[in-house]
Amino acid sequence: MIATEKIAGLAVVRTVAALRRAVEGWRAGDSRVALVPTMGALHRGHLALVTRARETADRTIATLFVNPTQFAPTEDLARYPRDEAADAQKFADAGSDLLYAPSVDEMYPPGSVTTVDPGPIADRLCGRVRPGHFRGVATVVTKLLLQARPDIACFGEKDFQQLHVIRRLVRDLDIPVRIEPVATVREPDGLALSSRNAYLAPAERIIAPRLHRTLAETAENVRTGAEPRAAEAHAAAALRARGFSRVDYVEVCDAETLAPLERLDRPARVLGAAWLGTTRLIDNLPLLPAV
Amino acid sequence: MIATEKIAGLAVVRTVAALRRAVEGWRAGDSRVALVPTMGALHRGHLALVTRARETADRTIATLFVNPTQFAPTEDLARYPRDEAADAQKFADAGSDLLYAPSVDEMYPPGSVTTVDPGPIADRLCGRVRPGHFRGVATVVTKLLLQARPDIACFGEKDFQQLHVIRRLVRDLDIPVRIEPVATVREPDGLALSSRNAYLAPAERIIAPRLHRTLAETAENVRTGAEPRAAEAHAAAALRARGFSRVDYVEVCDAETLAPLERLDRPARVLGAAWLGTTRLIDNLPLLPAV
Repeated sequence: MIATEKIAGLAVVRTVAALRRAVEGWRAGDSRVALVPTMGALHRGHLALVTRARETADRTIATLFVNPTQFAPTEDLARYPRDEAADAQKFADAGSDLLYAPSVDEMYPPGSVTTVDPGPIADRLCGRVRPGHFRGVATVVTKLLLQARPDIACFGEKDFQQLHVIRRLVRDLDIPVRIEPVATVREPDGLALSSRNAYLAPAERIIAPRLHRTLAETAENVRTGAEPRAAEAHAAAALRARGFSRVDYVEVCDAETLAPLERLDRPARVLGAAWLGTTRLIDNLPLLPAV
Repeated sequence: MIATEKIAGLAVVRTVAALRRAVEGWRAGDSRVALVPTMGALHRGHLALVTRARETADRTIATLFVNPTQFAPTEDLARYPRDEAADAQKFADAGSDLLYAPSVDEMYPPGSVTTVDPGPIADRLCGRVRPGHFRGVATVVTKLLLQARPDIACFGEKDFQQLHVIRRLVRDLDIPVRIEPVATVREPDGLALSSRNAYLAPAERIIAPRLHRTLAETAENVRTGAEPRAAEAHAAAALRARGFSRVDYVEVCDAETLAPLERLDRPARVLGAAWLGTTRLIDNLPLLPAV
């Protein structure tokens, strides 16, 4: 394989052509290839994706690309944490075989206009407050999957709606890849790891795990008979009472379609998004009907 | 390869899984594979695509799928000509190696929601009068390319805006395929071959070639100094005077971007669409600046 650049001993490619040369070399040797797409600012949640990739494939490609098209103009693109050298070191330590870190121009050459539209789900839950976000995610993930052509791609359950959109687009567009979901990694107090946790002030960091706790209580309430819409309203009020400055949503959804669930008669997911000052946190939990 | 069904001696597959097994078998033998997507109702224009495919690859897959998502509710989906046996015979005679003829359910399983959005070009030219058409085309072509994973795919220049959308989506989504454009095949009187020519009444068939003639005159007018917008208005009036019942557009466009051309300072394309009764005809011609 032809990759002359190295960071922390990890081979780095920055073009689609160089990425494909590396993957084709591995394929010729019958290696199974896994992809771990990230926007960097790595934490242990990302590294769990690399670990899962290494367990399921022979070669692991980590990607590092802060995708501008999934940020709305009002969002935190400019302040999103970036430290390529530190991220490369972490990917290397976790056992990645290659880092793909394209420029914005390599990903979106001048004249690019085609996008992948996830359909109505893009306007629900996080999509309602982040217009264009899931179209941006769907487009960049489609591109990454078709650029690298991995056998497997790993995504975290922390971004559950994103995982749903990606599973759907892989099926709907017939992309030949297996999507491997990886469970959310949490701090000891329950807070889901997120690159955006770095924005939290100390007082906010104390409040933050109450999102997870409130979603867990909501799941328990529905499991023990509460009506989903009532449980959601209760949860939103609880989050505000517990210190969150704004609640975007708490919703009890069909785990497969993410449609709002009327009754707990199938596997469900409780999803929530709330703000602490200028930082938006999301989390979600599985909710299974009693057997 | 495992394809038990044959029509006119041509192996037929109807599922993505069977298609992929066939292609993988060929790939293992180092064959280059070409795809020829069609909606059937074959004429010599389609067969020119098969001929080109056979010249550029070792194996040729013809596809036959009348894609419902590229027809608007008001359009001719129900009356679109269908004769699978006759089409299979023509594909076989032209030397195709495999026919892929999926059902609508195989192509769009229940729950499919993701689409490929070609961007603003989808609302221009034919897109202005056919809302949703190019999104439908872009989605089904993306799927066909990712289902079959050919090295090459052949498309006719007759549907020039469609060819443009496909070239763009292949670049924008990083689909690893070479798009091979094939020149329009015409009747001796200049009429571009089209499955929809079968709808024409004898009196309409006499008028039909005047679309090509008018576009050729328009190209000549611009080549000899006419201002594009004036030449377009002149062409639309000429088409009406020559018997067309309605003119959707005549436009002089940048051949690369399909943006309206202000001056003939680069390769251009003259595109037109006009109606004869309930039948809509389209055509286009190259227009090069003087050297």
